[in-house]
Amino acid sequence: MLRTVLFFGLMLASVVSSTSHATPAPASAQACAACHGAQGQGGGIFPRIAGQPVEFLQNELRFFRSGARPNPMMQPVTKNLSDADIAALAGYFSTLHPPFTPAHVDLSAVERERGQELVTAGDWQHQVPACTSCHGPDLGGTAPLIPALAGQSRQYMSIGLRNMQSLHGQARYFPLQIMSHVVAGLSDTDITAVTGYIASLQKNEKPTVMRPAHDGAYKFTAQSPNNFTPPPESAIPTGPDGDEIWRGRMIFENTRQYAAQYVGDKLNCSSCHLDNGRRADSAPMWAAYVAYPKYRSKNHRVNTLEERIQDCFRFSMNGKPPSADSPVMVALVEYFRWLATGLPVGITPKGAGYPPLPAPPQPPDLQRGSAIYAANCAMCHGSNGEGRGARGTQVFPPLWGPESFNRGAGMQRLSTAAAFIKANMPYGAAGLLSDQQVWDVAAFVVSHPRPPDPRLHGGPTTAH
Amino acid sequence: MLRTVLFFGLMLASVVSSTSHATPAPASAQACAACHGAQGQGGGIFPRIAGQPVEFLQNELRFFRSGARPNPMMQPVTKNLSDADIAALAGYFSTLHPPFTPAHVDLSAVERERGQELVTAGDWQHQVPACTSCHGPDLGGTAPLIPALAGQSRQYMSIGLRNMQSLHGQARYFPLQIMSHVVAGLSDTDITAVTGYIASLQKNEKPTVMRPAHDGAYKFTAQSPNNFTPPPESAIPTGPDGDEIWRGRMIFENTRQYAAQYVGDKLNCSSCHLDNGRRADSAPMWAAYVAYPKYRSKNHRVNTLEERIQDCFRFSMNGKPPSADSPVMVALVEYFRWLATGLPVGITPKGAGYPPLPAPPQPPDLQRGSAIYAANCAMCHGSNGEGRGARGTQVFPPLWGPESFNRGAGMQRLSTAAAFIKANMPYGAAGLLSDQQVWDVAAFVVSHPRPPDPRLHGGPTTAH
Repeated sequence: MLRTVLFFGLMLASVVSSTSHATPAPASAQACAACHGAQGQGGGIFPRIAGQPVEFLQNELRFFRSGARPNPMMQPVTKNLSDADIAALAGYFSTLHPPFTPAHVDLSAVERERGQELVTAGDWQHQVPACTSCHGPDLGGTAPLIPALAGQSRQYMSIGLRNMQSLHGQARYFPLQIMSHVVAGLSDTDITAVTGYIASLQKNEKPTVMRPAHDGAYKFTAQSPNNFTPPPESAIPTGPDGDEIWRGRMIFENTRQYAAQYVGDKLNCSSCHLDNGRRADSAPMWAAYVAYPKYRSKNHRVNTLEERIQDCFRFSMNGKPPSADSPVMVALVEYFRWLATGLPVGITPKGAGYPPLPAPPQPPDLQRGSAIYAANCAMCHGSNGEGRGARGTQVFPPLWGPESFNRGAGMQRLSTAAAFIKANMPYGAAGLLSDQQVWDVAAFVVSHPRPPDPRLHGGPTTAH
Repeated sequence: MLRTVLFFGLMLASVVSSTSHATPAPASAQACAACHGAQGQGGGIFPRIAGQPVEFLQNELRFFRSGARPNPMMQPVTKNLSDADIAALAGYFSTLHPPFTPAHVDLSAVERERGQELVTAGDWQHQVPACTSCHGPDLGGTAPLIPALAGQSRQYMSIGLRNMQSLHGQARYFPLQIMSHVVAGLSDTDITAVTGYIASLQKNEKPTVMRPAHDGAYKFTAQSPNNFTPPPESAIPTGPDGDEIWRGRMIFENTRQYAAQYVGDKLNCSSCHLDNGRRADSAPMWAAYVAYPKYRSKNHRVNTLEERIQDCFRFSMNGKPPSADSPVMVALVEYFRWLATGLPVGITPKGAGYPPLPAPPQPPDLQRGSAIYAANCAMCHGSNGEGRGARGTQVFPPLWGPESFNRGAGMQRLSTAAAFIKANMPYGAAGLLSDQQVWDVAAFVVSHPRPPDPRLHGGPTTAH
């Protein structure tokens, strides 16, 4: 009790006393500080608001004020705030970067590994993308609208995730209902694990994608092409083959980082092939592995898998293709081979490519597409299709402009873009858009300028 | 009746009257001519003996003379021949090349296609190798011991094959019992087809490997890795993929012909991978397709399938490897992919590689190996391991010397050679040799000189 008093006393004493920031504290910040801490650092049931994206904070305060987000504590203290008050408060707290609240996190090794997996890789079998894929590489949030998770208390995150689950998609203030979809795939154990792992991170610590320990329990067996599931990453073997498979997986996810010399834009392999090429209906790599070599009308000849991958670098990455025997290529192809373990060769499996979308009732319309884009896509991909980054890392890929795929890419074909969007977008909430909406927004996306087709401009063919 | 008399009359009139050959007819040739024709051209139930390899003719005459080959017509007329008589007769008839007996062959399109298949590809499912693989590219025989089939009458061949079947391996005069094994796999329909097709060939006509008409009836389905059968060649699709698959198959069978710039010796892919890479326990290509990329201790890194194939060219072919995106490579890899249709990826199938042979009871012995070689291998591969050709085509590969695989090839490893021999040799009669005999003869084969390992001598790496 003494400690609590002392804590609150210290907190109050330091309220509004910060002198390390240019932005002066608005008067109303004192009310916030009573619960969120003098620097907005949060703790316990109170979220950290320091350093959150300014638009995110403004939105939240407006939701509380209007009652769109019902909250017995926040509604009373926000109901009389003016727009100017909200702007001042959001502006102020977004600039603060107090230390993380020291937290002892009680976490078993299994929980820690599961938490790390959810944060860095997700659990796509249950429709859960990686936390980092939206909240940023260090979970520090992605401006303007996606909040930081780093530095939040475990208690606050647990309550928040469980609230989202119990709301069953009724929380209309969540953009695109993405988090409502995500939490539906989390078990109680998952929530314990993921909140514990995040709370255990130190300030500026980037969650590392860690190669899972080889458990040896997974049995590789022949599978039906009608219902294929690639092996779990925990089944990656030890030894040189496993090392190469893991290298391929890392290149696939962060192509710009691990194969920089071949990438000329801000895309990764995983930008078009979700869940690192594992996900059905997202042009999964296991389906590609069993299909090549095959004839392609794109270049009127039979292409090996390596040649097909070279085209991804040439067009989708707007880069210089690695040669067929380059280390990057070998690692990618072995990763694909491993993903396909148990899948029969040469029989098109269910989930291959993107499922073709029937022609729309009405011709695609750019004006409708523009509105659909603004409402559903711009939050992540930016109003000008420029994508979003955070702390020097690309979080959401550009959809057009100089840093996006070029005009020779498959995604530039309207039917391909529509098929991809229908099956996979919005990210984490696929299926939200009607077929007509998908065709409209796809037409809008492909209508924009982007780098030229290198076949028409004598661009590079193969890097050596 | 008039016709028969006339025929025999003409025959007798022309006996021994040939003036077109330097070898004078021995006096005893007149007796042969009574049935086999003045020029040894044969017809009806009588075989064509003209142009047969001289050693083959000598052997046959000796077999008849001794009764080892029982024959009520031949035994009486050979029993008094001296060795010198036999040598003279064999020498004489081997030099004659009369026109083929004109024959109208009544053959349906289905029979013709089946006959052509048996002649040029065999039916390995029933342990039947292609006729051409021993009797030569034009069925003109392979000196010194393998007879010509070209020009034989259909009737004679039918009787001969049926006799071999009814003898059930009792005909000890057949070298290594190979034909006893082969005929066991032929149905009555097959005999009708294959004899009809051969009899229909014109003189010097080379049986063509013909791409089977696409029947569309074959259903590609997922198969168990424990019991895999590659699809039949009749299931090769129409269109550009099928064209490429067929190209790969042709390169595989006749690598020296279709990929000449990459081959530095007298081997083809099919020399080590029987039945054009289809055959289980003969390092089949369907098993390779689902295994690569994988780590190889040979070069201490992960190899793609293309890199593995490059090693075949570099070592087994003692040549210059085609680059990974060369037309030859693309065709081979698509052929392999097609052979693997329905086979699960990454699960080692039954029949992969060569089945490892247990260590021998006694250490391998070169002297025993030499004797085993002379008795079982030299007939085809030559006394000096030089292989055998016929009319400019390599029929049996050299096993050592300058035209054989180099010291870097897998086959140079004793255990690999032994495993291959046990499962696949003698060709068409595998299983004849005991494990000890196999180890002995393998040691004998690998003990000989051959081209050096290019890794140790700065040989070529990859052709571009």
